[in-house]
Amino acid sequence: MSEPARIGLLGRGTVGSAFADLVAERADAVAEIAGRRPEVGGILRRSEGDFDEILAGADIVVELMGGTDPARDYVLRALQAGKHVVTANKQLVAQHGDELFDAAREAGVQLRFEAAVAGAVPVIRVIQESLGATEIAKVFGIVNGTTNFILTEMAKTGASFPAVLARAQELGYAEADPTDDVSGADAAAKMAILARLAFGTPVGLEDVAYEGITDIQPDDLAYAKELGLSLKLLGVAERRERGVSVRVFPCFLYGGHPLAPIEGPFNAVMVEAPAITEITMSGPGAGGLATATAVLGDVVSILSGEAPVHVPGERLDVIRDVASSFYLHLEVADRPGVLAAVADVLGQNGISVRSVVQRGTGHEARLVMVMHETPESAFYAALSELAKLDFMRATPRAIRVIEEEFV
Amino acid sequence: MSEPARIGLLGRGTVGSAFADLVAERADAVAEIAGRRPEVGGILRRSEGDFDEILAGADIVVELMGGTDPARDYVLRALQAGKHVVTANKQLVAQHGDELFDAAREAGVQLRFEAAVAGAVPVIRVIQESLGATEIAKVFGIVNGTTNFILTEMAKTGASFPAVLARAQELGYAEADPTDDVSGADAAAKMAILARLAFGTPVGLEDVAYEGITDIQPDDLAYAKELGLSLKLLGVAERRERGVSVRVFPCFLYGGHPLAPIEGPFNAVMVEAPAITEITMSGPGAGGLATATAVLGDVVSILSGEAPVHVPGERLDVIRDVASSFYLHLEVADRPGVLAAVADVLGQNGISVRSVVQRGTGHEARLVMVMHETPESAFYAALSELAKLDFMRATPRAIRVIEEEFV
Repeated sequence: MSEPARIGLLGRGTVGSAFADLVAERADAVAEIAGRRPEVGGILRRSEGDFDEILAGADIVVELMGGTDPARDYVLRALQAGKHVVTANKQLVAQHGDELFDAAREAGVQLRFEAAVAGAVPVIRVIQESLGATEIAKVFGIVNGTTNFILTEMAKTGASFPAVLARAQELGYAEADPTDDVSGADAAAKMAILARLAFGTPVGLEDVAYEGITDIQPDDLAYAKELGLSLKLLGVAERRERGVSVRVFPCFLYGGHPLAPIEGPFNAVMVEAPAITEITMSGPGAGGLATATAVLGDVVSILSGEAPVHVPGERLDVIRDVASSFYLHLEVADRPGVLAAVADVLGQNGISVRSVVQRGTGHEARLVMVMHETPESAFYAALSELAKLDFMRATPRAIRVIEEEFV
Repeated sequence: MSEPARIGLLGRGTVGSAFADLVAERADAVAEIAGRRPEVGGILRRSEGDFDEILAGADIVVELMGGTDPARDYVLRALQAGKHVVTANKQLVAQHGDELFDAAREAGVQLRFEAAVAGAVPVIRVIQESLGATEIAKVFGIVNGTTNFILTEMAKTGASFPAVLARAQELGYAEADPTDDVSGADAAAKMAILARLAFGTPVGLEDVAYEGITDIQPDDLAYAKELGLSLKLLGVAERRERGVSVRVFPCFLYGGHPLAPIEGPFNAVMVEAPAITEITMSGPGAGGLATATAVLGDVVSILSGEAPVHVPGERLDVIRDVASSFYLHLEVADRPGVLAAVADVLGQNGISVRSVVQRGTGHEARLVMVMHETPESAFYAALSELAKLDFMRATPRAIRVIEEEFV
């Protein structure tokens, strides 16, 4: 048996502790399959440990501190020192991917980050390795467990976003500062990573157009139920004719969609490619032990000598005005001609209506519609015209809908 | 750029042709990520080509001929000659895994077989690599597309097994000789492979207890619908206290089960492990191009220098008398005391009833029940007692049910 593989561990929060325990517990199993026994050498905590000392003593650096500062500096220095790096840090890879991949390539070492996207669901490995030589058309899914938990609870209970967020915080499904999750920024970072790998082009966080779930109202979910829809925060990365589009947005799915049954803190990612139709992967999106398991999988791959190569790839254009289907929620005065006026604005902008629900009288009158697919610029032009109509009692609300029918 | 990697291709049926085309089409993409351009050198067809010549000129041998003879001989000789081998041949790996893995280990070469199970769904790679150091409790799923297509159609149309099989043959979803698929033998081979990898123990086809779908009656599906169940041919490999159990059987699933919505020729596999709860992967289970894509993924991994190690592992006992929940379909005379007599036999054997549907009068009287979990030996003892009761008008029919409730 060779020398043990020494792991320099940066960060010892929930995931870091779970990882340290897991390495101790599974060291023999790793030694059997990879030929080397892993052991955690130095650990850098916020209050103790010296990075240079830990780096000098490490074969592999595992970064589980989160945030980009000082994580970026440490990871860069580790790669430049010729150490393999495993990280679970999605913001680090999404925001500084270019320089990190360059540094890894120059030093001839590996940078692995399975745990950065969808926790224990091995979507990175599948895209990079199983489908490495396959032309991928689209990667999309539910990549944030906190928001999926919140939307599931809102749909079940009818409660408001703030009320359900508070409950998610109590249960540990949302952090004390939930901004990154509920704003869509966390999902955007993950989609930037998936787009980079799927399309072989440098995509950063700044290329992702994202929206969160803070404006979702309970009655959006109630009307949606009536229309047979369920609401998810969706990340979508698509190869398009002259580029790529990468977006995160709340979105209604028809009942038969494979992502519709994904509930609570679970994640699910679908990969579409002409050669394979589609594959779907789902599982727990977070949790200390699940994330630590994904990190250990990367460590095992490094010890086994696997070597994914990160090709720089040509930079593709990022396309922002894509076609989408929308749900539209209008609070209107209950008087004749309202539906005709709304339909007229939509028609003028080339937007056709798929279904309509009109409900209530007097102050309660609401018009809820689902549109067929249309360029987003045309839809938003119509939306601002609608907002100016004199019978409109509140700002119109719009949420995207996936209208494709699946097998 | 290094020398091209020469592929010796054995077999040129549907998958072989799709693979040869795919290599030509994706050669540049492979060269970019793996550093070597693949090219198909010799091709061995049934009627032409010389194996020794193809072997001598190959860096990697890709076996897509199917069957175990002469595939076993060719693959063994390729491994012994120090060539990496990729195969899509489930029966070969399931029946001759021990000697093939030994030969690969001795020669220090790779034997990869992602396409042997679940087509383009990368379940082998996920179990071997992502979860290589994780303690897996259970692997189960739908691993035969032909039978899933047939069961889906039977449920939808109410038609009989022979009628739907004929339709599946017309559509190309079933072969002219469908025995391997409908008997469960194909799924059994795949489950032997998954069990070997998940539990690190040598499992062969002979260790798998399997049943097919040839005896399924349309009214089983009709009653099942009434009970909220859907019928699948399920493969289940479980780590048990003193060994493993590996089985294939038709089985009813409750509506909320993640495998219940998998329809038509799709495959889906779930992996349960304490560290990750469960992950689910689904996609097309067969098809020339999907299978060829999985084969190419293996070729890319070999060219990238990845090296999964096949640990022999200790031989675990194969446990056959496991606990199951059953659906029971009894055609009985319609007279007083029948239900009491049936309940008495079940009770004597320690079997408790979960739900009952009693229907019809005279010759049409039927008793349909779903039991709670019980050791299979006890259930079959009860079944043979029931068959002897004088009011029984036909042989009792039993089908397993998964009664766990999922998130």
